[in-house]
Amino acid sequence: MSGRFLNKAGADEIVKALTIKAVMGKSLFSANDRILIAVSGGKDSSVLAWALSAIRPALKFSYELSSLHISTDFCACCKKSTLAQRLEDWGIPFTDLFVPVIGRLQEGRKMNCYWCSTQRRTELLRYAVENGFNKIALGHHMDDIVETFFMNLCSKGRMEAMPMSIKYRKFPVTLIRPLGLLEEKQVIACADKLGILKTACTCPYGINSGRRVMRKQIDVFTGGSGDVKRRILKALAEGDRDYLIG
Amino acid sequence: MSGRFLNKAGADEIVKALTIKAVMGKSLFSANDRILIAVSGGKDSSVLAWALSAIRPALKFSYELSSLHISTDFCACCKKSTLAQRLEDWGIPFTDLFVPVIGRLQEGRKMNCYWCSTQRRTELLRYAVENGFNKIALGHHMDDIVETFFMNLCSKGRMEAMPMSIKYRKFPVTLIRPLGLLEEKQVIACADKLGILKTACTCPYGINSGRRVMRKQIDVFTGGSGDVKRRILKALAEGDRDYLIG
Repeated sequence: MSGRFLNKAGADEIVKALTIKAVMGKSLFSANDRILIAVSGGKDSSVLAWALSAIRPALKFSYELSSLHISTDFCACCKKSTLAQRLEDWGIPFTDLFVPVIGRLQEGRKMNCYWCSTQRRTELLRYAVENGFNKIALGHHMDDIVETFFMNLCSKGRMEAMPMSIKYRKFPVTLIRPLGLLEEKQVIACADKLGILKTACTCPYGINSGRRVMRKQIDVFTGGSGDVKRRILKALAEGDRDYLIG
Repeated sequence: MSGRFLNKAGADEIVKALTIKAVMGKSLFSANDRILIAVSGGKDSSVLAWALSAIRPALKFSYELSSLHISTDFCACCKKSTLAQRLEDWGIPFTDLFVPVIGRLQEGRKMNCYWCSTQRRTELLRYAVENGFNKIALGHHMDDIVETFFMNLCSKGRMEAMPMSIKYRKFPVTLIRPLGLLEEKQVIACADKLGILKTACTCPYGINSGRRVMRKQIDVFTGGSGDVKRRILKALAEGDRDYLIG
């Protein structure tokens, strides 16, 4: 199994196959859905946009794709024209939205990941609702999901990962993660094969160190094995969680 | 918090306090329960037997304690008279039951942990049922529970730990783990303080290496922090596990 999933030559086919498996197996979207893809310009969201476009012929229904990039007041290096051109090549409209993340900070408050991601997520959701999109697609992959699970388990003492699909209670929008069955290295291999270069800014704050530490610890823990991560994902997805502590 | 829980001088008091917390918080047993303690002669089950006896004055109800040791045909070095004497000192009757674990192997089959533990568990359950015990107490602590959780997660792809309390479906018996809130090092500190020496055999097969590897990996993962393990235990115990994969 590992061999098949690590075949670099067919990296794009693997991404398509596992994206279709996620979309169909988890009912991520269906006919006439209007899907807004959150694109940072990084490899993950770029591969996501490509994949959602590339699997159109294989799916037997029509759906709309569009993309939104959020620019901020602390990051101006993003090559947006390259990103826009790439998305146009894949037949996906592109919108750039400016959000003054620092400008919205209350006086005396320091910039942090939580504040920034909340501001971005809020604007993303507002844009989707105002423009009639009923699905928001995010580029998180299996490593992100497993990492988040372990961070919440060890830091918060909570059993929370990233659902492949979760509906907002108060809004007519569902978050979906169509790359959830793919390992990060499979996503990177696909980006490399397709010649997708990173066009996102590197965060100048660089304060996301908790996640980096956890990533290294998980590598020790799983021995870097994709099979182990897939088993963890299977456990997270299964309904039977009754045999825990009691 | 760590400081309090690592105080060696009060190791016996810590064990008593966290055993009472488990018994009351998880309703492990109550008035008139008849509890059979599975004793190997090792430190864990010895501390368990001591603790269940030592917390009698603090609990406002009466319960019966007895103990069962299972001897096998491949392990004859156990100092049973020392074990029996120790239990008698604590007011706990002791029974030794011989189970021919190797003798029951089918021809051509090799000895393994699964076979041995199944034979022992079956005989333990049979003895409890035949002698009217409605609770079986096992000496597993927090490290055992966390280890089992991670082994099942990574090897089997299942969300299974060791419940603090679980009733057999087909028998009128409930398994309980009163040391479940204690770290292994807290149990060892208590055994040391009480002068409890190990009287169990060391398994001559020594084939339980998967668990040893997992134990080391968890140490790397948690940085050996009891707080991290307690947060994991809290997550396992909580009812809300809906925000996983969806």
